[in-house]
Amino acid sequence: MVAKARRPVVTLTTDFGTADSYVAEMKAVILSLCPEAVLVDITHEVERFNIRMGAYLLARSAWLFPRGTVHLAVVDPGVGGGRKPLILETPSAFFVGPDNGLLTAAAKRQGISHAYQIRKEYCWPSKVSETFHGRDLFAPAAGHLAAGKPPSSLGVEVSTYVESAFPSPKISGRIVEGEVIHVDRFGNLVTNIDRKLPETRGLRFGSAIRIQAGKIQHPRKVRFAETYSQAARGELLLTVGSGGFLEVSVNQGDASKRLGLKAGGKIKLLLPASGGRKLEPIRSS
Amino acid sequence: MVAKARRPVVTLTTDFGTADSYVAEMKAVILSLCPEAVLVDITHEVERFNIRMGAYLLARSAWLFPRGTVHLAVVDPGVGGGRKPLILETPSAFFVGPDNGLLTAAAKRQGISHAYQIRKEYCWPSKVSETFHGRDLFAPAAGHLAAGKPPSSLGVEVSTYVESAFPSPKISGRIVEGEVIHVDRFGNLVTNIDRKLPETRGLRFGSAIRIQAGKIQHPRKVRFAETYSQAARGELLLTVGSGGFLEVSVNQGDASKRLGLKAGGKIKLLLPASGGRKLEPIRSS
Amino acid sequence: MVAKARRPVVTLTTDFGTADSYVAEMKAVILSLCPEAVLVDITHEVERFNIRMGAYLLARSAWLFPRGTVHLAVVDPGVGGGRKPLILETPSAFFVGPDNGLLTAAAKRQGISHAYQIRKEYCWPSKVSETFHGRDLFAPAAGHLAAGKPPSSLGVEVSTYVESAFPSPKISGRIVEGEVIHVDRFGNLVTNIDRKLPETRGLRFGSAIRIQAGKIQHPRKVRFAETYSQAARGELLLTVGSGGFLEVSVNQGDASKRLGLKAGGKIKLLLPASGGRKLEPIRSS
Repeated sequence: MVAKARRPVVTLTTDFGTADSYVAEMKAVILSLCPEAVLVDITHEVERFNIRMGAYLLARSAWLFPRGTVHLAVVDPGVGGGRKPLILETPSAFFVGPDNGLLTAAAKRQGISHAYQIRKEYCWPSKVSETFHGRDLFAPAAGHLAAGKPPSSLGVEVSTYVESAFPSPKISGRIVEGEVIHVDRFGNLVTNIDRKLPETRGLRFGSAIRIQAGKIQHPRKVRFAETYSQAARGELLLTVGSGGFLEVSVNQGDASKRLGLKAGGKIKLLLPASGGRKLEPIRSS
Repeated sequence: MVAKARRPVVTLTTDFGTADSYVAEMKAVILSLCPEAVLVDITHEVERFNIRMGAYLLARSAWLFPRGTVHLAVVDPGVGGGRKPLILETPSAFFVGPDNGLLTAAAKRQGISHAYQIRKEYCWPSKVSETFHGRDLFAPAAGHLAAGKPPSSLGVEVSTYVESAFPSPKISGRIVEGEVIHVDRFGNLVTNIDRKLPETRGLRFGSAIRIQAGKIQHPRKVRFAETYSQAARGELLLTVGSGGFLEVSVNQGDASKRLGLKAGGKIKLLLPASGGRKLEPIRSS
Repeated sequence: MVAKARRPVVTLTTDFGTADSYVAEMKAVILSLCPEAVLVDITHEVERFNIRMGAYLLARSAWLFPRGTVHLAVVDPGVGGGRKPLILETPSAFFVGPDNGLLTAAAKRQGISHAYQIRKEYCWPSKVSETFHGRDLFAPAAGHLAAGKPPSSLGVEVSTYVESAFPSPKISGRIVEGEVIHVDRFGNLVTNIDRKLPETRGLRFGSAIRIQAGKIQHPRKVRFAETYSQAARGELLLTVGSGGFLEVSVNQGDASKRLGLKAGGKIKLLLPASGGRKLEPIRSS
C-alpha cells in the first residue's frame, strides 16, 4: 500500500505536445482534486502514438521519484476503443494510463503488487468525453490517488494487463543482436542491451568491442568507455547509458547521423574474450 | 469577489516560446510577490501575435482550474502602444493581460463581474520597461492578485473592454457555415460550431452529416461519431471536441493534411433532417 | 550566507531539450532531497553546448528570483572530463553547474562571495555516472543546498573559476563595435552593448543612431526608441532591451532575418553628438 505523501508528486508523460492546452487541462483537473500536488512533466514530446518511446522514457525516470509518486502517462492510439483504463500499484508508486504496455516496464522495475481497471463512474461526476480520456478519466484517477483515495475506490482489481513491448536482445556466445529503442537529443543511440552485460562478461572500460550497425556494415572496433571524454572528439564509442542500457555515442557528435540509425534499427556487438584488449588511451585535451 | 486560495494557482499563456527566458522571468516576479503560488503553463507556443489562437486555448482550459486561479495571458502585438493593460474579474477567477480580446472569451464563460485598467504605478516599484510588459506590468499584477490584493488596488474600474474576436458560424436552416479556429498537434480541425448544435437538432451519434471543406469541394457524407474508434482507421469523421466545439478528425490520421485546411479555413455542414440516417457501424478491431 | 527559504526555488537551465526525460530525472533527484522545492525551468533549449547562450539567459533572469534561490545550470561539453563541478555563492543565491563560464556572469551580477568545488562523495550515496552529471552530481548538490545544507558540506572552497566568456564591445569615441550575443524568438538581436551607454552619452529616445550590421553595409540611421510602437510597423529600430543590453528590432517584424544576422554577428553603432537629432515621430495607429 502506497502511503500518501504530504506534497504528493504527480508526473505526466504524453504525446500531446505543449502547443495545445491538453496538458494544462489535465493539470487543472489534478489540482482541483489534490491542491497540494507537485506536478512534474516527464515529457510531452513522445512521438505521436509511439508507445514504446513513452514506455522507455517513463521506465528510465519513474524509479528516481520520491515514494508515493503518481505517474500519469497517456500515449493512447486506442482512446475510446476497447482498451482498459489501468492503475498499476507498486510498493512505492501508482501508474495510471491506458492498458497498452505503456506503464508496464516502469512499474515492473518497482514490482507490481496490484492492477485495477478504472471505472469511469467511480472517478468523475460529469460525463466522460470519449475523445480525451487524459483529462476526463486518467487525470481524475491520478488526482484522487494523489489525494489519498485507495485505488480500489476507483476501479476493480484485475489480474491481467498488457506486457511491455520492449524487445529483448538475442545473445549467442559472444554475439549480441540488439535494437535501438530511443535516439536522444544528442543523437545517442540507446539500445535494448542491459548495461550490466559487459560487466557480466568481465569487460573493462577501455576495451575494444566490435560493432556492426547501420552504415558500419563490417564489424569495427570501438572503445567501450566510461565517459565521453575518454574518447577523442568525434570518436564513436560504446558507453553505459544513464538509463540502464548500453548506448552508442560520438564524443561531442551525433551517433544517429554518423551511423544513419533511428529507433528500431539493428545493432550487432561482437564481444571480445574475457577482459578484452585495451585500446591506447587518448591524450586528455 | 474571488477569495484567496491557500496555494493560489497562476496560469501562464503566451507567444513567448520556451527557448528564451521570458516566461521564467515572469515566474520569478510572481514568486517574489506570492511565494505560495502554484505556476501552471497553459502554453507558450501560441503563434506569434495570434490573439485568436491564444484566446481559444485560454477559453477551453481556464474554466477547469480551481476557484481563485489567476490567469495571466500575454499575446500582445501592441505592447508599449495605446492598448489598456486589463484585469477581468469573474466570480471564480482573475484574468490579467492586454485589452485586445485575448481574455474575453475565457472570462465570459464564467461571467465578467468587473473590469479594471491596471495602473503601472500601483503595481511595481521600479520603472516599467516599455518592451516587456509581461514581466514588468502583467506579472506583478498577477502576483499581487495571487497574494490576495484586491484588483481595485492595482487599477481603476472601467466599463469597456475589447470583445472576443471569435467569429460566429452562419446558420441558415440545415446549412451551417463555420470556420476552423484551431488545428491541434494531431491535425484535428477545431471549428467555431458549438458542440451542442447536433443535439439541438436531434442528431444521434452514428448519423451521417454532409461536409464541404478544403479539398472536399462537393458535399460528402461523414460519420458523426462519439469516439475516434467508432470510425475505421483513416476514416474522416465529425466529433464533439473536448474544447466545446465540433471537430473534423481522421481516426489515427491528420484531418488538416487530408483536407488541406488550416486555421481560418471555411467549413460547411449540411445537416440531415432530424435524427439523421445511421451509417453502418464499423467492426470493432 | 544564504538563508534557507520556506519553499526554496530551484531553477533549471540546460541544453537537454524536453523530448527526453533528462530534465525530469534531475527534478526527481531534487524533490527526493528537498520535497518543498519549487521548480522553475529557465530554459532547456539552449543550443547544444552553447555555453554563451546559456550564460546570457541565466544572467538576465537569475537576479529576478527570490532570495535563497538555487540556480542549477548544465551546458557541459566537458562532462566526465577535467572541468570542476562548481558552486558559486552570492549574498542571495547559489549557482550550481560546470566550471566553464556558464555561471559566472549571473553570479557576478549579485557578487560572488565564495566558490566551492563539489566533491562527488559528499553528495550522493550511489556511484556517480560519468555521462550524466546533471542528474548524478549537480542535481544532488542543488537539492542539498535547497534543503539547507551548507555548501562547505558539499565541496571544498576554491579561489579560482572560469571567467565569463562574454565579449565586451570596443568603444572608441562615437564608434561602438559590438556583437550579437543572442537572437530571441521574435528575431530581436540582443547585443553586448550595455543599455546604459546611450544615457551616458546623453542620447534621448527618439534620436537617430547610425548602425552598420549584416546586410546594412553602409551606416544607416535608425530610431532609438523606448517602445516598439514608437516605430512604424516594419521599421528597424534600436531599443533598450529588457535583459540589460541594447537590441536591434523590427516593429512587428524579425530583425535577424532583415539584417541576415545571427549570434556572433558584428554590429557597429555611430553615435550622434550629445543628445542627437530627433526623428519625426510616427503617427500612432
